[in-house]
Amino acid sequence: MKSGLSFLIAALRCEIDELDQLARTSALVATIGRLVHALQRERGLSNVFLASAGQRYAEERAEQAAAGLREEEAVRACFDRLEADAGGVGNGARLFSRIAWVLPGLDALPALRRRISAGELTAAEATAAFVKLIAGLLAVVFEAADGATDPEVSRLLVAMFNFMQGKEFAGQERACGGAAFASGRNDADRQQQWLHLIESQERCFQVFVEFAGEGMAALWHGSQPAAQLAEQERLRRVACAAPAGVVLDPELSTAWFDCCSRRIDAMQSIEERLAADLRRICERRIAQARAELEAHEALLARLPAADGTASPAFFDEPPIQERQPRALETPATYGRQLERSILEMVQDQSHRLQAMSEELDTVRAALNERKLVERAKGLLMAHRRLSEEEAHKMLRRTAMSQGRRLVEVAESVLAMAEYLPGGPAR
Amino acid sequence: MKSGLSFLIAALRCEIDELDQLARTSALVATIGRLVHALQRERGLSNVFLASAGQRYAEERAEQAAAGLREEEAVRACFDRLEADAGGVGNGARLFSRIAWVLPGLDALPALRRRISAGELTAAEATAAFVKLIAGLLAVVFEAADGATDPEVSRLLVAMFNFMQGKEFAGQERACGGAAFASGRNDADRQQQWLHLIESQERCFQVFVEFAGEGMAALWHGSQPAAQLAEQERLRRVACAAPAGVVLDPELSTAWFDCCSRRIDAMQSIEERLAADLRRICERRIAQARAELEAHEALLARLPAADGTASPAFFDEPPIQERQPRALETPATYGRQLERSILEMVQDQSHRLQAMSEELDTVRAALNERKLVERAKGLLMAHRRLSEEEAHKMLRRTAMSQGRRLVEVAESVLAMAEYLPGGPAR
Repeated sequence: MKSGLSFLIAALRCEIDELDQLARTSALVATIGRLVHALQRERGLSNVFLASAGQRYAEERAEQAAAGLREEEAVRACFDRLEADAGGVGNGARLFSRIAWVLPGLDALPALRRRISAGELTAAEATAAFVKLIAGLLAVVFEAADGATDPEVSRLLVAMFNFMQGKEFAGQERACGGAAFASGRNDADRQQQWLHLIESQERCFQVFVEFAGEGMAALWHGSQPAAQLAEQERLRRVACAAPAGVVLDPELSTAWFDCCSRRIDAMQSIEERLAADLRRICERRIAQARAELEAHEALLARLPAADGTASPAFFDEPPIQERQPRALETPATYGRQLERSILEMVQDQSHRLQAMSEELDTVRAALNERKLVERAKGLLMAHRRLSEEEAHKMLRRTAMSQGRRLVEVAESVLAMAEYLPGGPAR
Repeated sequence: MKSGLSFLIAALRCEIDELDQLARTSALVATIGRLVHALQRERGLSNVFLASAGQRYAEERAEQAAAGLREEEAVRACFDRLEADAGGVGNGARLFSRIAWVLPGLDALPALRRRISAGELTAAEATAAFVKLIAGLLAVVFEAADGATDPEVSRLLVAMFNFMQGKEFAGQERACGGAAFASGRNDADRQQQWLHLIESQERCFQVFVEFAGEGMAALWHGSQPAAQLAEQERLRRVACAAPAGVVLDPELSTAWFDCCSRRIDAMQSIEERLAADLRRICERRIAQARAELEAHEALLARLPAADGTASPAFFDEPPIQERQPRALETPATYGRQLERSILEMVQDQSHRLQAMSEELDTVRAALNERKLVERAKGLLMAHRRLSEEEAHKMLRRTAMSQGRRLVEVAESVLAMAEYLPGGPAR
């Protein structure tokens, strides 16, 4: 028969296990961030390489692929370490399932690179392949954030996921604009897609700023020189504010590419800072929990017969605000006070855990939007027999034509599930 | 470097671990249900014992206490087993913290019983002590339900928690009515409390019916003979529909007590059925997951060099609905097909996990109401320096006077947090 204090200690041990595990998934997220950055650069170089029929960036592309390979190995090593310790991974089923999904994509990279080298793919096809692979990697990051049980860590992981996702939209915008300028004209479809990428980026960075804290938000705003921002906005306007089909100056494609790339590289340094913060927070939280655990264990050792002793105080302990100040305690009431102090510790821990759980709910709400969009897509795929891309396009088109946010359209789709063709009659 | 299939297997192993753990917490919930039932009976007997100045039920009370002790030992043994395997318990920090909170209450039971035997407590004080202890035990059940990661199990745990909570309100109603009839009159305060207990019960049983499935709901309705229900409603009307201060016939207290007790005993048999269903579902889900795991492992063993092989199919696999029927596959395409079949397995598992996660969110929404009420109480306790009971009474009073549900009042309180005295200026 174990005492309440033993379970308090068990609760703390669970918390430490969860934090250790969060430290591991946080390290994974940072490593994935570096691989994604490398793949984004390779995507950009491959685009120009294919668009120039192999004339430009052949060497840079090969160098970037080699760099990507190193990051890929680091990610695979992280995956393997996580798998070796599968028992301790919260949200393990979903996290590993995402990893299982993306690994064949990494396996297929050498073949993709060969086909690009041989000019067997169009720039659009190569871009689509990299987009799919990066989306798979970001899905792993999403599950890592969704599985976090500590609100402080969760908060930073949500910030990190949204930043990475925003950076990916920025990368897609670079490719989209690059293709538009290089082809010398813009059409209505591409303008729509471009505006959607701008809007999606902004939404992601808003969530990032909301969750990353003021210091990090200031760093982010400071990382974007006004002149560079102005140049990017000017190029966006030239291509998107003009009527569809407008002729574009192909010479602008280099300016566009450089301007976007400087911005994306700056993002990478923010991401590294976020990763460092994550590591530090995990370490600090683990140290806190360990110190508390030691204090509890010392107390347990001091108790003469902690296990099985009666605790009549349970039924008459006063609400916390009525407690006597500690200075008034006399030695005569020590036994009673010790018993009461354990009750207080239990109460304090309960309050702390409850506060954490509330904060966690708040943080998770931010992840919920993405889940709603994914669900609406799944519904459309099943009921209208669409591919994932088609379903996404359909949602996006509706959002743009109705001037609503993607998540709002997703909510409407989910609410109307039973009206969809082939839907279950309820 | 591990393959996607290895991680699919890791995902399944995590699922099996989670299910094993759910089987253990489900067993704990069933054991707690039996202890709660014993404590509810002891509370009822103690009430009459104290109200009759020790004249009635002295022997039955002693027998019931002995029976309670056996259930208590079973619960403590479950707690200890859970603690010994702390690493594998999801939601462990909160679950163990709740156990730590309730254990001093169990430790204090012998002293409580001695004080009741010596007539040192009023019936109301004894009732309040049992109510507190049972609330602590139900909080453990709540965390067990909240930590469930399998929607089918989670659904039944939510049904079980609500049923247990409803049964506890029924037990409190028995005590409340018993005291009213025994004292020969009813006052406005007690009438209010009584109506609140009826309403709370009904709300709990509604949620139970919603989540337990049709068979169990039918069993529940069938367990309450119409004549017995009619008698209980008649006694409720006699005491509650009359003006406050009405004189009640003390002779009715026995009829009331028997009628309530028959109903509560019938509830216990429903609870046992729920517990048996829970056990069966856990076993079936574990068997399913193990069979799938074996199939995956057999496939992994068959693959010549599964680890590290390229998967070019990743970038061009068709949407699921476009798949060729299996009968058309030729041996020549076997290698490619095998690779594709792994991709399909990964996709199928992803879809399954996503469907599970959606269903889980739906089930959890039912637990959210309780969380909102707890949070609103916590807020009132902190900002208005109330005890938990006072905070609960305040919420309940507002709900009754405004004709709104408790959870609606809780939501309003949370929304108005910054207007509360001592609240943080935001």
